[in-house]
Amino acid sequence: MFSVSPLSAQFESDILTIINSKTKPLGALGQLEDLAKQLVNVKSQSNGVLVTNPTISHPHMLVFAGDHGIAEYGVSIAPSAVTGQMVANFASGGAAINVFSRQLGWQLDVIDAGILTATDNDAICNQRLGAGTKAFHLESAMSLADVKLGFSLAKKLVEEKHKNGCDLIAFGEMGIGNTSSASAIMSAVMNIPAVESVGKGTGIDQATFIKKQQLIQQALDFHQVPSNQALEILAAYGGFEIVQICGAMLAAAELNIPIVVDGFICTAAAMIAKLIQPNVQDYFIFAHCSGEQGHEKMLQWFNAKPLLQLELRLGEGTGAALTLPLMQSALAFYNDMASFTQANVENVVSEKE
Amino acid sequence: MFSVSPLSAQFESDILTIINSKTKPLGALGQLEDLAKQLVNVKSQSNGVLVTNPTISHPHMLVFAGDHGIAEYGVSIAPSAVTGQMVANFASGGAAINVFSRQLGWQLDVIDAGILTATDNDAICNQRLGAGTKAFHLESAMSLADVKLGFSLAKKLVEEKHKNGCDLIAFGEMGIGNTSSASAIMSAVMNIPAVESVGKGTGIDQATFIKKQQLIQQALDFHQVPSNQALEILAAYGGFEIVQICGAMLAAAELNIPIVVDGFICTAAAMIAKLIQPNVQDYFIFAHCSGEQGHEKMLQWFNAKPLLQLELRLGEGTGAALTLPLMQSALAFYNDMASFTQANVENVVSEKE
Repeated sequence: MFSVSPLSAQFESDILTIINSKTKPLGALGQLEDLAKQLVNVKSQSNGVLVTNPTISHPHMLVFAGDHGIAEYGVSIAPSAVTGQMVANFASGGAAINVFSRQLGWQLDVIDAGILTATDNDAICNQRLGAGTKAFHLESAMSLADVKLGFSLAKKLVEEKHKNGCDLIAFGEMGIGNTSSASAIMSAVMNIPAVESVGKGTGIDQATFIKKQQLIQQALDFHQVPSNQALEILAAYGGFEIVQICGAMLAAAELNIPIVVDGFICTAAAMIAKLIQPNVQDYFIFAHCSGEQGHEKMLQWFNAKPLLQLELRLGEGTGAALTLPLMQSALAFYNDMASFTQANVENVVSEKE
Repeated sequence: MFSVSPLSAQFESDILTIINSKTKPLGALGQLEDLAKQLVNVKSQSNGVLVTNPTISHPHMLVFAGDHGIAEYGVSIAPSAVTGQMVANFASGGAAINVFSRQLGWQLDVIDAGILTATDNDAICNQRLGAGTKAFHLESAMSLADVKLGFSLAKKLVEEKHKNGCDLIAFGEMGIGNTSSASAIMSAVMNIPAVESVGKGTGIDQATFIKKQQLIQQALDFHQVPSNQALEILAAYGGFEIVQICGAMLAAAELNIPIVVDGFICTAAAMIAKLIQPNVQDYFIFAHCSGEQGHEKMLQWFNAKPLLQLELRLGEGTGAALTLPLMQSALAFYNDMASFTQANVENVVSEKE
């Protein structure tokens, strides 16, 4: 369903020349320089010419919500009802992701990918794959047909955003129990036991933590999906929101849109996206390392150094949202800093070479 | 000259109650929650009541420039002339700190604290303590009278900004050779040899690096200032910009203005400020851990966890500048997120307690 091309290398040396002409010691803006390189490179792909004055003017944040059958088996502090309550909170603008989106300029959409009870709230986009997934330690979370439908719905949505000018995309999620799905996906992809992938989510106690590890190990033993079978992993472990985020990432990369990867759950979706189309990683900007145990290990799997390490563990796309100003700073220095020549500043490094 | 009161603890529990009422798992916004607590607390000090709807509307960035006699002895890749050239670049708006200040909303002032050659550029504030410091491995960088004059000029400037509504302050610096002063200050305060405090600055080669370590150790052995003699340390090692930043930090804390601490050089100034008035740390927000070798160790001395780790090593206040959106995010979630009650979301944590 997806075909993601590798980034052309043709712009890299021109971009580097521009960055190194700026009035600063070589490399002195650290990760912001890598970010500028990646953003300018991705933004130059579509038209085949080096983009001039690259900006981010239409950043879109898509928050997908879904419920999880396993949540009924004691893996979370909150009941599944909280998913729907938080979706209503998103709709009325009171959650953290609403606040950060308004502050920073993200256009926010909330998508019901399959929460327990459908809502007739017009502020929620309906892309339901069901009323919560099945309990994945007992059976498959969903069918392969559900996965494919989720991909297709997500792709259509991203294409619509692209038509509306979207030039940066990020994803968030809400779903009581979804750290369990993300842990199972991580274990399946990395071939590691549940003890290495399962964390405390939003703050469960020790007994719940042990129970969560046991159920996820039970699920891994039950399904035994080979680590390269991307769609089968999603079908086995869910969830509906993770499936749609995965599909949306692949669709965004196809359209040459830079993708901001949020925390533990979104990074699980990104792992599956990479299994499907390895080139998708060229489009990934890893926003942060979350406080959730396994996230650092996921980032190592990608060999990624994230922009922020603020011990966030909220989800909703909040970590991704907070990085927008850094991306704008990266483009601002690239566009607006004077060169050594323009500013009549001695370029001691170039002189030495 | 300065008297910095400790923060009153009277608001802490009210602030925590508000933060914990928000629709998110307890503590899930990580360092952003600590930041909100500190900002709201500092902003509540002046009037003795918990501030309502706290915002940052007048953030000021003061960049102090100075030259260093030791720069003539081969400790840097660039000659001292580059300091003046960069100050001119600041005046015409082409440097990184100009770009980030414009993007993010900092009001930027550039202060000549004592560069080699005075400029008649109206965009530069003249607070010169001399035409560069003396080479501090051979004699004192400046006199104690210079230090006190620097403090007094800096205090007056901060008081003026405060009258103009300044509600957040950050400092930046420019001065070829100033990582040498900062390393010497760090060694003097922490009682460690130069090999532990000296890094590669903007990117010197191995031979220059060894030379720099030798000269700074020579300076430490020559002056032997006791580690608790703050003013004497500044007089011995400089520089003019570091002295004024130190004084400005103390003045800002006196006026209950939150202070964003930038990288290696500004953190050296902050160490001296803390020696003079230990309470000043209550007002410090540590912006980032820079790529300069000793900075992480300085931050440990403060027991501080900075907001960013982007391997920046540019100075100019750029690291501090980049954190403004995070501070605004911290206040935004504090002000604008719905509570569990407002949003009709089950507060599972409170219920359990």
